[in-house]
Amino acid sequence: MNPQKPARRQFLKSGAALAGLAVAAPAALPAVDAPVLEKVDELHLYGARSHYVTSARNGSINNPERRLPNEPVAFGLRTPLQDSVGIITPSSLHFTISHGFEPPDIDPKEHRLLIHGMVDRPLIFTVDEIKRLPFVTRFHFIECHGNSSPRGPGGDARVSVDATPQETHGFTSCSQWTGVPLSLLLKEAGVKKGATWIIAEGADEPKHSKSIPIGKALDDALVAYGQNGEPVRPEQGFPLRLVVPGWQGINNVKWLRRIELVDEPYMAMMETSRYPSMTLDGKSHWFEFTLGPKSVITRPGGGYRMPGPGFHEITGLAWSGAGAVKRVEVSTDGGRTWVDATLHEPIAHKAHTRFSCPWTWDGRETVLQSRCTDETGTVQPTVAAVARLWGADIDFLKKSQQVVGDFNAIQPWKVNRDGSVQNAIF
Amino acid sequence: MNPQKPARRQFLKSGAALAGLAVAAPAALPAVDAPVLEKVDELHLYGARSHYVTSARNGSINNPERRLPNEPVAFGLRTPLQDSVGIITPSSLHFTISHGFEPPDIDPKEHRLLIHGMVDRPLIFTVDEIKRLPFVTRFHFIECHGNSSPRGPGGDARVSVDATPQETHGFTSCSQWTGVPLSLLLKEAGVKKGATWIIAEGADEPKHSKSIPIGKALDDALVAYGQNGEPVRPEQGFPLRLVVPGWQGINNVKWLRRIELVDEPYMAMMETSRYPSMTLDGKSHWFEFTLGPKSVITRPGGGYRMPGPGFHEITGLAWSGAGAVKRVEVSTDGGRTWVDATLHEPIAHKAHTRFSCPWTWDGRETVLQSRCTDETGTVQPTVAAVARLWGADIDFLKKSQQVVGDFNAIQPWKVNRDGSVQNAIF
Repeated sequence: MNPQKPARRQFLKSGAALAGLAVAAPAALPAVDAPVLEKVDELHLYGARSHYVTSARNGSINNPERRLPNEPVAFGLRTPLQDSVGIITPSSLHFTISHGFEPPDIDPKEHRLLIHGMVDRPLIFTVDEIKRLPFVTRFHFIECHGNSSPRGPGGDARVSVDATPQETHGFTSCSQWTGVPLSLLLKEAGVKKGATWIIAEGADEPKHSKSIPIGKALDDALVAYGQNGEPVRPEQGFPLRLVVPGWQGINNVKWLRRIELVDEPYMAMMETSRYPSMTLDGKSHWFEFTLGPKSVITRPGGGYRMPGPGFHEITGLAWSGAGAVKRVEVSTDGGRTWVDATLHEPIAHKAHTRFSCPWTWDGRETVLQSRCTDETGTVQPTVAAVARLWGADIDFLKKSQQVVGDFNAIQPWKVNRDGSVQNAIF
Repeated sequence: MNPQKPARRQFLKSGAALAGLAVAAPAALPAVDAPVLEKVDELHLYGARSHYVTSARNGSINNPERRLPNEPVAFGLRTPLQDSVGIITPSSLHFTISHGFEPPDIDPKEHRLLIHGMVDRPLIFTVDEIKRLPFVTRFHFIECHGNSSPRGPGGDARVSVDATPQETHGFTSCSQWTGVPLSLLLKEAGVKKGATWIIAEGADEPKHSKSIPIGKALDDALVAYGQNGEPVRPEQGFPLRLVVPGWQGINNVKWLRRIELVDEPYMAMMETSRYPSMTLDGKSHWFEFTLGPKSVITRPGGGYRMPGPGFHEITGLAWSGAGAVKRVEVSTDGGRTWVDATLHEPIAHKAHTRFSCPWTWDGRETVLQSRCTDETGTVQPTVAAVARLWGADIDFLKKSQQVVGDFNAIQPWKVNRDGSVQNAIF
């Protein structure tokens, strides 16, 4: 019996022959002569990545001229999605948005979480007390509502033809969050009749606050102390972060210290002056929450160079604030035809989902796109469709100098004949 | 409508009232006065954990006298399971076993993977070529076959009454691995009739080699380049690691450079002289592979101190080399009664599964235990049952000075009246 033939036939059937990839082997491998790692003693306690791996966040750190008064260099640091594999964002590369201050350096022994306002019993918890309670552990993305907006946080980098997946979509990240369901804490405190909102407040110097409807607070929000198997990172809210799955990033209050139950929203600075989206008639959309279905091909994407014609698995990430990703379609011919991509497990609710799709590049110019459909049946729109939603046209979006919130249009990547890949959003 | 009552009733029904935990709130929270993080500029590119978080691997680094000649300090570094949350082991804390040398510092541009031997077409791949192939991304644990053995790697630390979950079970870790199915590479090379084994070889200085039956190689093994969303760490095999799900750790060859197809096992040094388990009649078990169902309560576990009587969620990890975890039972009364723990999603094949179970401690001495059943119906045995399997008694295991491979007995933790928790394996 020759086990090769059926298997090989199966592989070729999928159209994924390794054209231009599999190379006949030479007589021998290069000699093994790598030196051993240096400074290894300290790495024994807590390891580090290879010094050959240099993936890093970027953002206004690269565009200081776009920084607002009093904003630290950290404002808007994006995740390098083009280097991502699987669905976990390494905690060291999780995006951050910082409105004016660097992360506080909190001693977890001193930190407290207060739950008060319209409750029967105001409660205060230490971090250790929180960790002794029943918990949930779930994959969730957190995404800035300005992510992928033409001229969002990060400015022109997003619309440049040179933009990478990091520059177009890097304000989303996904972690395995572990924490106590907020509903458990609220029920223990006893929610009084008439309490319809919570105000969540952080321990950062400006005390970022956010109003959240009590229905969401009692649904799937959690007070997270764990991120990807270890304590939440300082830039993500150490020691406690409110995770509000599927809702705009600004709701996920970091350094959580206080939850007040109230009967109306707080009209906090960020929720009234900065985050509402302006429409063409000059009105604002306040208290927008759920992020729509979105996807992006992370490889090959902007800034990548195809090594030549031949086989190349296309891969990317898809997500939706409304629940699980149901389907991702990929087009490799500028949108004429679409094929279903493979969705890799786990396909979790309100989490990044990894997709992939075999492709053999013929060396000609083309455009790659992905399109996400979530479990509610909502389909990721084209740029033109998003413009119509805004009562505008693509030209309006092109020229807009403000953040277009919740911009979830399909991202096209143009593959040139020389193998370079470019942003083709406009 | 008062949303509190039904919810609170539901919570109390589960027996998980927050006795001794929820504290009435004072008039005000402590002032917010945490300083901001220092040296934050470099953290913008690639973040770090809080300096208040000091979880670290340990092992012979703490027991230099147990080191063998030519063995580096790194031999046997264990994951701090007592601090774990969720199922992901932070890559910086993944356990390592190192037979004689520190990790090589490999330039991924220079690295090659050769597939040769009994194949139709010997092939050689660069790392970039591997990354362009169809991939899988899956959660898998890797576990040393000596993990949790009475006197395994790490010596007496494991049987000491002071042993922590790290010292008893820290030679297992779980990652989201991303890589190319080995079957795809083998089929592309063309497996010749009669090829029944593969020999996988690493690029470390001693060129660790392992014989693996071709059936497993074609089943679910993968050539991994990604770990937890970024490249495999140097201590885990950067840039390529063979992941052999559910099989003894030694099969998961790091720094993978060569796979040779052959018609008999290679009888490599580690597989003949060191890893076979000796039985009472002086014979060796060679080529043992699949790790049995195992579980350990990670909190409260050895070395933990209960803050006092009252509510405390019990949590731990369960896994099996044979597939998915089907059930975990927990006993809080020395094994008289058992209750089903909650299994948290994802419950992946050959991966750590997080479990938890509410518990209210009455302040009296007791013993906590967990018992895993996997999807094949195999149940984690008691120490006495393992001893019987070996044709011995518990006393034999107590006195054994050699590694008892694949020791997957139930781990008992004794809770003393003063709140201290101790290892009660013997």
